Amino acid sequence: MNKLYEQLIPYLERNHAYQTALALLSWDTETLAPPAAADYTAKSVGVLSEESYRILVCDEVCDLLKKLSSKKEQESLSVSERAVVRCLKKEYEKTACIPQKEYREFSEFCATAQSVYCRAKLSNRFEDFAPVLEKMIDYTRRFASYRAKKGENLYDLLLNDYEEGFTVEVLDDFFGRLQKALLPLLHKVTAKNDTIDKTYNSRLYRVDTQRDFCRFLAGYVGFDFNRGVLAESEHPFTTNLHNHDVRLTNHFREENLESAIFSVIHETGHALYEMGVDDALTGTPAGTGVSMGMHEAQSRFYENMIGRSEAFWEPLFPKLKEAFPSELADVSKERFIAGINKAEPGPVRTEADELTYPLHIMIRYELEKQIFSGECEVKELPELWNQKYEEYLGVAPKDYAEGILQDIHWSMGNFGYFPSYAIGSAIAAQIYSYMEGQMPIADYLKEGNLVPIREFLRDHIHKYGAVYTTNELLKQMTGEEFNPDYYIRYLTEKYTKLYQL
Amino acid sequence: MNKLYEQLIPYLERNHAYQTALALLSWDTETLAPPAAADYTAKSVGVLSEESYRILVCDEVCDLLKKLSSKKEQESLSVSERAVVRCLKKEYEKTACIPQKEYREFSEFCATAQSVYCRAKLSNRFEDFAPVLEKMIDYTRRFASYRAKKGENLYDLLLNDYEEGFTVEVLDDFFGRLQKALLPLLHKVTAKNDTIDKTYNSRLYRVDTQRDFCRFLAGYVGFDFNRGVLAESEHPFTTNLHNHDVRLTNHFREENLESAIFSVIHETGHALYEMGVDDALTGTPAGTGVSMGMHEAQSRFYENMIGRSEAFWEPLFPKLKEAFPSELADVSKERFIAGINKAEPGPVRTEADELTYPLHIMIRYELEKQIFSGECEVKELPELWNQKYEEYLGVAPKDYAEGILQDIHWSMGNFGYFPSYAIGSAIAAQIYSYMEGQMPIADYLKEGNLVPIREFLRDHIHKYGAVYTTNELLKQMTGEEFNPDYYIRYLTEKYTKLYQL
Repeated sequence: MNKLYEQLIPYLERNHAYQTALALLSWDTETLAPPAAADYTAKSVGVLSEESYRILVCDEVCDLLKKLSSKKEQESLSVSERAVVRCLKKEYEKTACIPQKEYREFSEFCATAQSVYCRAKLSNRFEDFAPVLEKMIDYTRRFASYRAKKGENLYDLLLNDYEEGFTVEVLDDFFGRLQKALLPLLHKVTAKNDTIDKTYNSRLYRVDTQRDFCRFLAGYVGFDFNRGVLAESEHPFTTNLHNHDVRLTNHFREENLESAIFSVIHETGHALYEMGVDDALTGTPAGTGVSMGMHEAQSRFYENMIGRSEAFWEPLFPKLKEAFPSELADVSKERFIAGINKAEPGPVRTEADELTYPLHIMIRYELEKQIFSGECEVKELPELWNQKYEEYLGVAPKDYAEGILQDIHWSMGNFGYFPSYAIGSAIAAQIYSYMEGQMPIADYLKEGNLVPIREFLRDHIHKYGAVYTTNELLKQMTGEEFNPDYYIRYLTEKYTKLYQL
Repeated sequence: MNKLYEQLIPYLERNHAYQTALALLSWDTETLAPPAAADYTAKSVGVLSEESYRILVCDEVCDLLKKLSSKKEQESLSVSERAVVRCLKKEYEKTACIPQKEYREFSEFCATAQSVYCRAKLSNRFEDFAPVLEKMIDYTRRFASYRAKKGENLYDLLLNDYEEGFTVEVLDDFFGRLQKALLPLLHKVTAKNDTIDKTYNSRLYRVDTQRDFCRFLAGYVGFDFNRGVLAESEHPFTTNLHNHDVRLTNHFREENLESAIFSVIHETGHALYEMGVDDALTGTPAGTGVSMGMHEAQSRFYENMIGRSEAFWEPLFPKLKEAFPSELADVSKERFIAGINKAEPGPVRTEADELTYPLHIMIRYELEKQIFSGECEVKELPELWNQKYEEYLGVAPKDYAEGILQDIHWSMGNFGYFPSYAIGSAIAAQIYSYMEGQMPIADYLKEGNLVPIREFLRDHIHKYGAVYTTNELLKQMTGEEFNPDYYIRYLTEKYTKLYQL
């Protein structure tokens, strides 16, 4: 092993220990911790974040990274080691420019900001969250400005943190094309909305039975219970301490059968990515999914291309009917498949169908652009939000909780993150299109055999963690970099067929 | 505020953040983490333990503690501040003598030792655990020797970590008296064992209903769900991140009604102690219960003196019958009270009644003494264990899992800890005897009003955290230091009456 790289290892180990502890504190806060703990725990999070800053931002690491970036040293590193150096350097550059004191203050602020947000959402009071949101935007702007090159667009910088190379220019084009193709399609679909009856979905479905079925589903799709756990939280999410400890949550509503089912398939898609990372990368900065977009591609692939397909439900629908015999007595498989694919504009992103989903993302992208260009103030956001929902989706949120306060992301400082949801959906369609040519996906699904699909994704994407960039992975796998045409074609064909347009 | 003490505060805050993270990692491992995570998590625990060692064991803290221990500085500190300095100094002295590398290795070893123990217990193989136990004993002996004064008994040193001043000399006397009083009493009780019929306890009791009832019980006794959570684990336990985040676990068995009920009352007793600590002490080394003995006194007080009394069940027994109407149809309150107090020698400590419980502890105390005096080897322990169970309790464990492998403590390096269970029971009896003279306990219980009892304990014990020692608290409260007479009298009177001896 390269001598300099060897010297880096203790820092990687220390860094990973802090990330593990901080991930667990965050998971615990979301899923279990008692309400009164929040402010105290925030303080500990602040201290540990500051400590982890000290591990990373020190002369030794700076020096090692500099030396390891030289052409000579790079040549003596393995592909994985080079990726570790690259990831750590990116993290270093993002962090080192922030003064330590500010870094700690920000970490503490983040931990409390989420609880302010949650209370504001519960009480439907945007005005309670607004000052926190303003402060969060200020922090984000300031921290980004510390590392921005002269004249660089700050929002480009933020976007790049989540998905390398996806600038405003790229995304304007991407969303422009989506809008052009999807809005007319959505209008046609909406006009024929009555043709699909999914009233069955809002009957009463026992939560206990839903919970058991979803646990079964997670395992069916490939979740490894030896390396992961299922829990519950307000919004479903997936996190990981490392590739041997991957955790997902779900939520259950008695009067919504679909919600928990597609959440668990979606989150299992995320989990499979992390569980599939090669053990040689565990605990290094390259030992996790490469980008939010590629992560979302895995979850959307399983949720939509796999989970909403007729073939997937061929062996499963009888089991679902067994779980809810009276509730689904009058529902045929055909009706169920049409129901789970029905497109209906609504105000809530997490409940959106495949067709309207990217429009929810586009709205957030447009608002974030306006925020960081200084075109709009926080206090104007609720109205802008509602205007855009009216314009693109023809719906009006009934209150703040269903509108501007629906997502937790901004309270976590995740600006520039939302676009990766749409990027991920597009990548999923691109991967699916390629894989259809490589294997009989539908046949496997009908047999209830998801192993070849999972193995294929692991061999081409999951095992590499963050060793290759999103575009490198796509190129290696499909021979082509990111191309949204597949996504537009997929949605157009799917909905044209479903609604017989 | 004293200038030197002010300089100590950042160290206290950092120390607390690590303790919070480590407590959470440990809680999570016991209650939720997936099996495959253990070794990876152990590594992170090792790193964080080493980091927390660095916070504490440094020249600045050493220097501050030395200066703050001077008579002049002590005089300018408040009572609480003095206690914080004393607790931190104790922690410093216990830790600083261990080389940093050994400290980390030990922390990592501890985290894996528990999973080895758990697997060995599951597969009933003492031989798998034996090498780990030997290594744990070696570590314990070595670390104790680093700080032992010349000629000092190492086991005395270990005992002192859990209960200041309770040396082998004190405990030999304590257990000698217990043995002398309790063995003859137990023989008389055992001879009349048929007079109490508690067959009802092993009927089938739905776990869901037990869970709901136990949750209700925790709240009834005073558990504050705003500052704590309930979960499940193999063995019930209580832990705390701080006094606003106190966590207890329970376990449920379908064919044992009592087990979960008295576990939750017991653990709630522990939880009330931590929840009752004054906020001014939160996050300092004095912000937690003063000793294991005093902690166990709180849990035993609630479990036995309160929870097994007739008055406690007067308002509650009808509710229990409501929860299990057919299962308890033929069980009167009188029969239930006799049943929950019945003494029956058995092989398992955690299932033991009040009378046999201290004998379980005595066996562990005698074995630990032999281990640390070098009188016995690890491989001899199972046989010695069984001999003592035969001698004192007249029972033979059916296998290792029920015998030598029943307790997790040794796998966690907790040698010298067990005696505090018996000390705690004795303190509970002493406190109860005193409180009976101060307030109409039975009347309060009959009214279902536990507030005056909880407030009294908080005002005299809980709020002080570790500001006063166990004996100081007892003296301030009851006018007398630790005195086991109350315990012996309590057990003798109780069982003489119950069995009409």
